Amino acid sequence: MLKDKKLEEFLDELASDSPTPGGGSVSALLGALASALTSMVSRLTEGKKGYESVTEDIRKVLEESEKIRKRTIALIDEDTEVFKAVMAAYKTPKENPDREKMIQDALKKATEVPLKVMNECFRVLELSRTIAENGNVNSVSDAGIAALVAHAGVQGALLNVMINLKSVKDDEFKKKCFVEADVIVIKSGELVKSVLRVVNEKI
Amino acid sequence: MLKDKKLEEFLDELASDSPTPGGGSVSALLGALASALTSMVSRLTEGKKGYESVTEDIRKVLEESEKIRKRTIALIDEDTEVFKAVMAAYKTPKENPDREKMIQDALKKATEVPLKVMNECFRVLELSRTIAENGNVNSVSDAGIAALVAHAGVQGALLNVMINLKSVKDDEFKKKCFVEADVIVIKSGELVKSVLRVVNEKI
Repeated sequence: MLKDKKLEEFLDELASDSPTPGGGSVSALLGALASALTSMVSRLTEGKKGYESVTEDIRKVLEESEKIRKRTIALIDEDTEVFKAVMAAYKTPKENPDREKMIQDALKKATEVPLKVMNECFRVLELSRTIAENGNVNSVSDAGIAALVAHAGVQGALLNVMINLKSVKDDEFKKKCFVEADVIVIKSGELVKSVLRVVNEKI
Repeated sequence: MLKDKKLEEFLDELASDSPTPGGGSVSALLGALASALTSMVSRLTEGKKGYESVTEDIRKVLEESEKIRKRTIALIDEDTEVFKAVMAAYKTPKENPDREKMIQDALKKATEVPLKVMNECFRVLELSRTIAENGNVNSVSDAGIAALVAHAGVQGALLNVMINLKSVKDDEFKKKCFVEADVIVIKSGELVKSVLRVVNEKI
């Protein structure tokens, strides 16, 4: 499990000449980093003097950001697994009558994982807006960094969605995924700008 | 040392109610992640068939991205240290005649570290353009993710530069840092767009 690696070992494996872990796992990690920062700001706000009126909202943010952190940590490994499955499917002997179906199934899974990452990162970005607006003002730069990291996760995972969809032949699946990814990335681009406006006003 | 923590432990510490490690360390980590991805794509390109003509350029990219990776890993801890020094300086008894100087010195150091992170991340972004243009086309999404992560590092570190400069009283230092940070963030915004154009054409 990549989460059990030391930070420096994880970076060594990333930098190695093996294609896994790669950018897909990094995008999932961005979701985990953004949610961890969101949790930190929530914890530095909850119950603090002057923030009594927002305590309930912040508690909900913390609860959700911690759930997203667990799910995105799991997605770091999942991305590596589905990528390996695609490579394995392509290596199936060409005579194998199931080869094409195996490739298509693997590609669909390798599309669904980064789509999940996009959704999780976008949700963290929404949470970062709440903590930028209502969280501890001393940690507002951390809320801004959470937003930037979450948005980079959305954009990074989009590249993996696109690259895998390119070889998918099921037009209905392709269209559904394109539309879903497109909507998220547009909303994410608008939201990160609005969070940064809030952060810059408070800095 | 944060680099010796397991990935999940690092995320736990980040999410805890301690302000360190925080967004500043995350921005430095983004530089390390982007340079690791840049190294990976370089290694998946160097010496591969069809890439003979770019081998020399790619080797230079790899050499530099590995140096940046080491420096940004060190900056993950440095950011935490300079932030702690600022908090310690503010806690100095008000009667201490050196208090104001200690605060100002600590704030300047806490500005210089994220400025270094901005410079390192921008340099990785430049390297990611080379690997997006000339690197292994099978890894072009990784080059794009490296660019996105590096740019998020530039933007994230900028927030820490701004928040620390706010309380610095040396106008000359302030101006110098503002100008330096401003130039990097503008160039970074233009460069990431151009790298993504290259990546999207190849996907």
